[in-house]
Amino acid sequence: MERSDISLNIPGDVCAPRGFLAAGIHCGVKKDAADLALLHSEEKETTAAAVFTTNHVRAAPVRYCEETVAGGRARAIVVNSGNANACTGAEGMANTREMARLAAGALSLEAREVLVASTGIIGEQLPMELIREGIPRAAQELGPSGASAAEAILTTDSFTKTASATVEIGGVEVTVGGMAKGAGMIHPRMATTLGFLTTDARVRPEILREVLREAVDVSFNRITVDGETSTNDTVFLLANGASGAPALEAGDDRRRFSEAVTAVAVGLARMVPRDGEGAKKLVEVRVDGARSRDDAVRCAERVANSLLVKTAIRGEDSNWGRVMAALGSAGVPVDEEKIAMWVGDVLLVQEGVGVPGSMEPGREALSADTVLLKIDLGLGSEVASVWTCDLGEEYIRINTQYS
Amino acid sequence: MERSDISLNIPGDVCAPRGFLAAGIHCGVKKDAADLALLHSEEKETTAAAVFTTNHVRAAPVRYCEETVAGGRARAIVVNSGNANACTGAEGMANTREMARLAAGALSLEAREVLVASTGIIGEQLPMELIREGIPRAAQELGPSGASAAEAILTTDSFTKTASATVEIGGVEVTVGGMAKGAGMIHPRMATTLGFLTTDARVRPEILREVLREAVDVSFNRITVDGETSTNDTVFLLANGASGAPALEAGDDRRRFSEAVTAVAVGLARMVPRDGEGAKKLVEVRVDGARSRDDAVRCAERVANSLLVKTAIRGEDSNWGRVMAALGSAGVPVDEEKIAMWVGDVLLVQEGVGVPGSMEPGREALSADTVLLKIDLGLGSEVASVWTCDLGEEYIRINTQYS
Repeated sequence: MERSDISLNIPGDVCAPRGFLAAGIHCGVKKDAADLALLHSEEKETTAAAVFTTNHVRAAPVRYCEETVAGGRARAIVVNSGNANACTGAEGMANTREMARLAAGALSLEAREVLVASTGIIGEQLPMELIREGIPRAAQELGPSGASAAEAILTTDSFTKTASATVEIGGVEVTVGGMAKGAGMIHPRMATTLGFLTTDARVRPEILREVLREAVDVSFNRITVDGETSTNDTVFLLANGASGAPALEAGDDRRRFSEAVTAVAVGLARMVPRDGEGAKKLVEVRVDGARSRDDAVRCAERVANSLLVKTAIRGEDSNWGRVMAALGSAGVPVDEEKIAMWVGDVLLVQEGVGVPGSMEPGREALSADTVLLKIDLGLGSEVASVWTCDLGEEYIRINTQYS
Repeated sequence: MERSDISLNIPGDVCAPRGFLAAGIHCGVKKDAADLALLHSEEKETTAAAVFTTNHVRAAPVRYCEETVAGGRARAIVVNSGNANACTGAEGMANTREMARLAAGALSLEAREVLVASTGIIGEQLPMELIREGIPRAAQELGPSGASAAEAILTTDSFTKTASATVEIGGVEVTVGGMAKGAGMIHPRMATTLGFLTTDARVRPEILREVLREAVDVSFNRITVDGETSTNDTVFLLANGASGAPALEAGDDRRRFSEAVTAVAVGLARMVPRDGEGAKKLVEVRVDGARSRDDAVRCAERVANSLLVKTAIRGEDSNWGRVMAALGSAGVPVDEEKIAMWVGDVLLVQEGVGVPGSMEPGREALSADTVLLKIDLGLGSEVASVWTCDLGEEYIRINTQYS
């Protein structure tokens, strides 16, 4: 499914569905920005699913959540930014477990009902004395808006990322809400960002897992900023049934619910490259005419990750040769003479060679802040899009001076 | 074979072996720099081998040379910089063939004895009127120094890259010489640069091919600047027998000759990331303790291509967490708790966690202009190195403003 009708300014957040409370506070992990978020479902029967980074180096909270979410239930998520709690050994794992216990204590839950996420610098132990003070305070500040939580999960992001959607299930309106973070270190397979989705639908854990996987495959797994994958990245989905809608079953309801979750996931995911470190443009690389969906994704990813393509887009230079070179190195057999390419509506390449007079209109099309780069491989009918951003000197500056 | 005893300032060039002449001139493809090189073997029985880019989009000269070099013989190579003659369709192929004919005419050879290479911008037709005037002029300027040719093959390079080595075969001294170009768009598998190797050994085409493949595998296939692969990249090896040494056969002579070719190839290859666009540091990423050589290469490549690692090195920041995250995403199973890491002699990571007090000495070690980043996976005994460079804002500047 390729969606292009999602506004980047969707109102609503993780508290848009009924029965969710959230809070975001500053506890001191970061010097002077909010750094601790808490998300809480008021409903006892809340189901949970998560999709985790494919990185072989996995942060303590990732390993903890993989185990904890396997039961399919959770009622709270505690999140810190500023420190990834990755490569922190046994002490790091003990700290994650303590975060879960602290949140459980503050919310009168069992520790196994609490999921944990961390994002920030790798290799440093969490300042637990600050976290110990912060979690009960965050619990006291829980309220019906996700705004402060959306703030507290950010790292180098320049704006908060929230979205929501509604859909009818069994005649009852059900809402899906969400928030995300991530500016650099974004790459397909998987998300390499944190995403938190909530819904007041009633969904069995097995279905919830399937729906989340489907949504992530066409959203968080289709974005890239710099080709990096992280040790921490996770997308969560909690379903608390507070809408009163009947439990979701296979069929039309299932399909429409999946579409709503996907719409929110795609909306959030696209905000991430839009907010890429130093980025000025959101770029959709759409590969059509591929022999398989997988081929289309691989070609789109390769182009979306090419430094030369991304710097050309920054320079508003319709240097399509760099796109051709990237396509040729995607590990997918392509036939150069069948390739056509457009930027926006401007045809740059036909049958593998440049279209005379297209450079100037191409440059014009690249001057927009949202750019569509469309490639037709001419080999089949499969299509896929990957979203990325341009690459500027600011990215280098941010990442040269990060720690 | 991992070599670390090669000086980056090896004297000698493609004319170090007997019986080779070279020239480099300005014909106008580039505005005001040398852009046309000619290399000529005076010996009739000159054998030839080449290794080509793995990119599926292949420039006209690459396709031409694949066909032409299959016969195992060639006596000249004509090279232009400033224009890659890639994505140029039938006209581009006709232009490559004409370049071969022009050089053959000027040197009294058959066209099939002439190989062709191009490097520069993709998607524009060669200015053949300039090339037609230039090739005979270059032929007139042929002489016993490779210096001007080494200049004329450059694109965004900031220095010429030449090397040579000698070895005894059957009691006779044999020389291997070479030149290379490439500053951005360098990536393993393969070279994504142009390399020209010459020798006055007498070598059958079958052996020459094997020796070149072995040399490229541990040299041009082990360097990366920006993870890009190009449409044009080729490494050539011509052997003219002018030393008078007996024809090379299997055994010790074969082994020593291969070592000499490899030494020159490694020497040239390392100069490429040293001269990476905007680079200040040559970085060797050495992965030890891998289960297989292939695992070691994949891990080293992934680290060497990580934007976050390369920007941290630019910032002289021993942020080893970024290296851990890159290792985890190499597609190779790693066990985080077995990983050790050093920058120079400074142990940063032991059993997957940071060594207290190592950040400052690590920063010190990163301040050198040649950096060794050594990783022990603790899983086996295989080792491989990949050479890369740091990533700075200059890279972005160069590539935002290229065309």
